[in-house]
Amino acid sequence: MKVLFMGDVVGRPGLQAVRALLPRLKATHGVDVTIANAENSDQGAGISPETADTLLAAGVDLLTSGNHFWSKKAIIPWVTAHPDKLLRPANYPKDTPGRGHGVVTLKDGRALGVINLEGRVFMRAHDNPFEVVQGLVEELRARTPCILVDMHCEASSEKNAMGAHLDGRVSVVVGTHTHVQTADERILPGGTAFITDVGMCGPLDSVIGMKKEQSLARFLGQKNAPYEVAERLVYLQGVVVDIDDASGRGKSIERVRVHLPGT
Amino acid sequence: MKVLFMGDVVGRPGLQAVRALLPRLKATHGVDVTIANAENSDQGAGISPETADTLLAAGVDLLTSGNHFWSKKAIIPWVTAHPDKLLRPANYPKDTPGRGHGVVTLKDGRALGVINLEGRVFMRAHDNPFEVVQGLVEELRARTPCILVDMHCEASSEKNAMGAHLDGRVSVVVGTHTHVQTADERILPGGTAFITDVGMCGPLDSVIGMKKEQSLARFLGQKNAPYEVAERLVYLQGVVVDIDDASGRGKSIERVRVHLPGT
Amino acid sequence: MKVLFMGDVVGRPGLQAVRALLPRLKATHGVDVTIANAENSDQGAGISPETADTLLAAGVDLLTSGNHFWSKKAIIPWVTAHPDKLLRPANYPKDTPGRGHGVVTLKDGRALGVINLEGRVFMRAHDNPFEVVQGLVEELRARTPCILVDMHCEASSEKNAMGAHLDGRVSVVVGTHTHVQTADERILPGGTAFITDVGMCGPLDSVIGMKKEQSLARFLGQKNAPYEVAERLVYLQGVVVDIDDASGRGKSIERVRVHLPGT
Amino acid sequence: MKVLFMGDVVGRPGLQAVRALLPRLKATHGVDVTIANAENSDQGAGISPETADTLLAAGVDLLTSGNHFWSKKAIIPWVTAHPDKLLRPANYPKDTPGRGHGVVTLKDGRALGVINLEGRVFMRAHDNPFEVVQGLVEELRARTPCILVDMHCEASSEKNAMGAHLDGRVSVVVGTHTHVQTADERILPGGTAFITDVGMCGPLDSVIGMKKEQSLARFLGQKNAPYEVAERLVYLQGVVVDIDDASGRGKSIERVRVHLPGT
Ligand SMILES: [Fe+2]
Ligand SMILES: [Fe+2]
Ligand SMILES: [Fe+2]
Ligand SMILES: [Fe+2]
Ligand SMILES: [Fe+2]
Ligand SMILES: [Fe+2]
Ligand SMILES: [Fe+2]
Ligand SMILES: [Fe+2]
Repeated sequence: MKVLFMGDVVGRPGLQAVRALLPRLKATHGVDVTIANAENSDQGAGISPETADTLLAAGVDLLTSGNHFWSKKAIIPWVTAHPDKLLRPANYPKDTPGRGHGVVTLKDGRALGVINLEGRVFMRAHDNPFEVVQGLVEELRARTPCILVDMHCEASSEKNAMGAHLDGRVSVVVGTHTHVQTADERILPGGTAFITDVGMCGPLDSVIGMKKEQSLARFLGQKNAPYEVAERLVYLQGVVVDIDDASGRGKSIERVRVHLPGT
Repeated sequence: MKVLFMGDVVGRPGLQAVRALLPRLKATHGVDVTIANAENSDQGAGISPETADTLLAAGVDLLTSGNHFWSKKAIIPWVTAHPDKLLRPANYPKDTPGRGHGVVTLKDGRALGVINLEGRVFMRAHDNPFEVVQGLVEELRARTPCILVDMHCEASSEKNAMGAHLDGRVSVVVGTHTHVQTADERILPGGTAFITDVGMCGPLDSVIGMKKEQSLARFLGQKNAPYEVAERLVYLQGVVVDIDDASGRGKSIERVRVHLPGT
Repeated sequence: MKVLFMGDVVGRPGLQAVRALLPRLKATHGVDVTIANAENSDQGAGISPETADTLLAAGVDLLTSGNHFWSKKAIIPWVTAHPDKLLRPANYPKDTPGRGHGVVTLKDGRALGVINLEGRVFMRAHDNPFEVVQGLVEELRARTPCILVDMHCEASSEKNAMGAHLDGRVSVVVGTHTHVQTADERILPGGTAFITDVGMCGPLDSVIGMKKEQSLARFLGQKNAPYEVAERLVYLQGVVVDIDDASGRGKSIERVRVHLPGT
Repeated sequence: MKVLFMGDVVGRPGLQAVRALLPRLKATHGVDVTIANAENSDQGAGISPETADTLLAAGVDLLTSGNHFWSKKAIIPWVTAHPDKLLRPANYPKDTPGRGHGVVTLKDGRALGVINLEGRVFMRAHDNPFEVVQGLVEELRARTPCILVDMHCEASSEKNAMGAHLDGRVSVVVGTHTHVQTADERILPGGTAFITDVGMCGPLDSVIGMKKEQSLARFLGQKNAPYEVAERLVYLQGVVVDIDDASGRGKSIERVRVHLPGT
């Protein structure tokens, strides 16, 4: 099974990149399942029903998220109504709307389990993702050997530790949240495909997607400077992973980085 | 001028990689100046006089550092005696031993100014690197148009903001500290070569250089588990930057990632 | 000189307490100068021109603030127009609107210098308050030996270190920000009056001024639960410090804690 | 039942204060149960078998701890052998040595349940104390209606939220960790005795127990300055709580603050 996972979709430019570039990308790589982290799709912070619908209409099968899951309130009733379309980190409190794991089923019956987690280093306190994930992996393995984990977090140590933790137990561990693609994609010794961060879908001529001058103004001291999505050099970024359907092992992982013409 | 910058050298494996691989790397790329971030060279945390001497003897011209500058006390008298051989972040308090910027002069008289900075997001509070760097750039530009900045920090936003801040004013901004190489090397619009993180020199079969099982034990709750440098899959990682001597503009930036045979 | 310093004024209940209780408190203690930290006066987060005016009209001579200085944008033009009426932390970036120190002059010519600082432990990165304060103390001592410092910060260590730092150089160091009054008021060995935190002016039947149920919902996981000012058990909290006019030494420091009847 | 709870015992001075002052304090107040937080008893950071034994020999019935529980490795086998004598936060990972709750039984058969928790704001990530505590309270209530909770944490908001959370369900919630006694002791509306922080047992002429000059050196930039326990103005600090044996409600809470003569 070929899975395309796209990193944090940032605002309108990110949505445009997915809409414009996804069909051909799927065809080129023979993609069976498409997943995207949508946490920044609404103006750079949060998800709206509209941005979620746009991504699904563009051909994404399942959305994941992260610390910005909560940023726009309108998504709460939406995710409650569509818990199988948008995941939030599984290690959030039990009462949190939405679910932290799900299954995408292909027309031919094959299935990909997906788990969304959030790290705790330099982030808000939640349940231990290293513990929470164990039960979820077991639960999903009863359905399918093919499992993808989106580990949304800041620290490179925590992402790499999750890769080591799940190596041989899941098919893929991808990192999201830093918005910068790393060059360390590889198959870990136990057979799990891994990358520290897949990078964002958004404008590269920016500070992690936001306007450079505004971000700089904040670092220079204007803590309440505006903070808006940038527009130039828009890229779709992610990885294509080939998973062995029988064993669930990662066979290959390839970085994707495609420019949106005209930006 | 061709500059080779190598990221955080981690323990004995990192030192071995530099010693074994540097000569050929310099020859292959025609390197004029070699710089390495040494902050993890002594057993993964800090710098000792021995590890500093080893790197210099291996052909490194100047060492930079970061938050682990302080980790081993023996380096303090050494850096006081050799302030032109090891930099610490320039935005540390005024009384801090050592210096935050320096100049490497080639035999033919060309010179590269080097500035070491530390970020503040998710790190200890120090002076604002975005302010401190301005005076240092001016000071160095009086000597040479060729300037490299090692921005040692955690957050991808802060590194990219520093790139935007200095674009057109320095030749290169490289990020260090996360130990994972990013795939975003490029020449910024103003002519500054940039990469979010050059990656470490150390064992990739690890959690950012440390033994996987020990790191995992900590994430699973054993906060006082041992924490030692790993040994397998050692790589030298960094970038080679070509700088226009006259203008100081970055002409190209290329990622380097070389395996140490036998690991 | 007798100085009344009141801690973080929280929302409408805090404003009501100051308005209703201040006149009698001033009379009872023979207060010469009145200062209040206003950072939470507008609905619990930030300062508006209206809340600033209300406090000044109620008889406060000078307002201080802290990390919530920025929370409401309307205060920026106001503080620019009235830099002698509202201070913000002196260790903020140079371009920040407003000033970090000022002088309150009594009708009889005596003067109290006031410095507002913000800590850096568990707070945003700014210039080192321990360094910044030194020049300001010197500047103010040229005007008057009587100086009060509002050290707005989270960590008890940082507040107590500031007390030790300035002991014998200023008249009073008061802490603000935790909203809970501490029981450690005392004259330090060098003659400086000190308290770790003066406490808030606001409703005690709350979580640091906010509605208990809403705060609890957040700790239980609803990160976007509403967060509104509580209403019951409103107290005015602060300290009255007696300063020796000639030497500037603190002679006594007394905690104040007065209930607003009907709450 | 009268319970004496003493805050973070800091090094040798703290131990001396407990040894010298505890017998009389117990007699004066008619104390039935004595508890002390021992996390700083070994040279200011951590607990050793010796400091634990010293406190127990001095008449303390049960020790609690906090983030410094891990600081000295020798305590791990000791706590494994004496799980009923030293608690660590109950919301630590499951495999952590020691236990997070216990029961002190009086000779007359009455019993006090004790729960130790650690907060998560500005502290390491652990399980949610607001969730973990619920099951423990139920478990202990099957044994006794008298329950004390030591909420070890940094943020005043988190401590006050825990008070609100448990109000009416336990007898006492005391805060520890900041080392500064707060002046807000009271019976909450539901009948739970509460104080934000009981303060340390240690030298007040210090920065939260440590030498002033050393702490200041660190705030001024010498991040690796020594850090030793101070010696002057040693106080025993804590609270005496009177609990109604039948209902488990807090009847009164009184702050204790006793000077150790000769310091
Ligand atoms: Fe993101
Ligand atoms: Fe994120
Ligand atoms: Fe490093
Ligand atoms: Fe580092
Ligand atoms: Fe504040
Ligand atoms: Fe406040
Ligand atoms: Fe403590
Ligand atoms: Fe503590």
